[in-house]
Amino acid sequence: MSRLTLYSYYRSSAAYRVRIVLNLKGLEYNAIPVDLLTIGENDGEYRDVNPQGFVPTLKDIQRLFHQSLAISEYLEETYPEIPILPSVARDRAQVRVLSQMVACDIHPLNNLRVQDYLREKLRASEEVVREWYHHWIREGFEAIEALLERSIATGEFCHGDSPTLADACLVPQVYNARRYQCDVSAYPTILRIEQNCLALPAFRDAAPENQPDAA
Amino acid sequence: MSRLTLYSYYRSSAAYRVRIVLNLKGLEYNAIPVDLLTIGENDGEYRDVNPQGFVPTLKDIQRLFHQSLAISEYLEETYPEIPILPSVARDRAQVRVLSQMVACDIHPLNNLRVQDYLREKLRASEEVVREWYHHWIREGFEAIEALLERSIATGEFCHGDSPTLADACLVPQVYNARRYQCDVSAYPTILRIEQNCLALPAFRDAAPENQPDAA
Repeated sequence: MSRLTLYSYYRSSAAYRVRIVLNLKGLEYNAIPVDLLTIGENDGEYRDVNPQGFVPTLKDIQRLFHQSLAISEYLEETYPEIPILPSVARDRAQVRVLSQMVACDIHPLNNLRVQDYLREKLRASEEVVREWYHHWIREGFEAIEALLERSIATGEFCHGDSPTLADACLVPQVYNARRYQCDVSAYPTILRIEQNCLALPAFRDAAPENQPDAA
Repeated sequence: MSRLTLYSYYRSSAAYRVRIVLNLKGLEYNAIPVDLLTIGENDGEYRDVNPQGFVPTLKDIQRLFHQSLAISEYLEETYPEIPILPSVARDRAQVRVLSQMVACDIHPLNNLRVQDYLREKLRASEEVVREWYHHWIREGFEAIEALLERSIATGEFCHGDSPTLADACLVPQVYNARRYQCDVSAYPTILRIEQNCLALPAFRDAAPENQPDAA
């Protein structure tokens, strides 16, 4: 029995990030699937675990941790043996910037609750929702591609030649972009890094289709 | 001449967060105003500073740092004398969770570029945009209020009795909520903490109306 439990949903890209981080660090965990499509806003039980009703939530020694980036930083501080952040402050900042360009500027705009709002409250057609989705992917990926291109720190991965939190954020976002038929061919650096990541079991094992709750 | 330069916009709540952090740490900085209403997507010059065209950007020893939370963590690591994060990992996680509930789950949905998209691409009326804005404030503030209420760590501030990064994120978001006429009376814990923050010069001096570029 592992001391770590992850409330996860196979298709949640925020949960996917934390699965990658756990795998990179070689940490075993029990996965509890939470079906985001059915729990809904009124599911009191999971709201006791996470007041936002979001995944992921991590349980460590009976304590609950929310928010994928906060969970990742917690894991980094608590299990530092295999780091996911560089050691120098300015490099750590660069990794966090890339992570937040995904976690703050792309993902929140495209997640399920926003798509639902567009459809239900704004009566948006599927085409309008798709264009919305593609628009924020383009805005975000163009900026990430530009930042990766101009940085001398970019290597085999987003920062240097070993995977970091930035890669754990980027790969799930590229996965989602493809799932929604976004054209990602304009981002060669992102694609090159994605390919290097997917060569590692830590990333492959975290993929949605390899989760126990995959449809 | 300070070694720190902040590219800021008085009304940007992300820049407001970093102004609070800089003030809490007693760090002097030169402010360079960037008018988000006029720079537009094609302003190549500021895009050289920040490829997303966003504020804030911090310059420290000729290096540029983006993303308010990444900048705040960089400042915490580089200027640790007055901390904005607790010392214990699980407490640090709680502060980051609250910060990210603002920075990932509220702010990105309500910022200018999203409002512009709603108006221009979805032909949303001002009433629809306002309801959109209020909706994400409600969702976020309800969850933050619930988390603050249930946590024994909540004190005079979001975490304990001294201000942290969580307060630096919360206060600008409450400011914006009021600016957009959201009813915030249902969040007594948030309001109590806001009042305690605004009693401190670090928060007051960072407020939009006290910036050199305030209209």
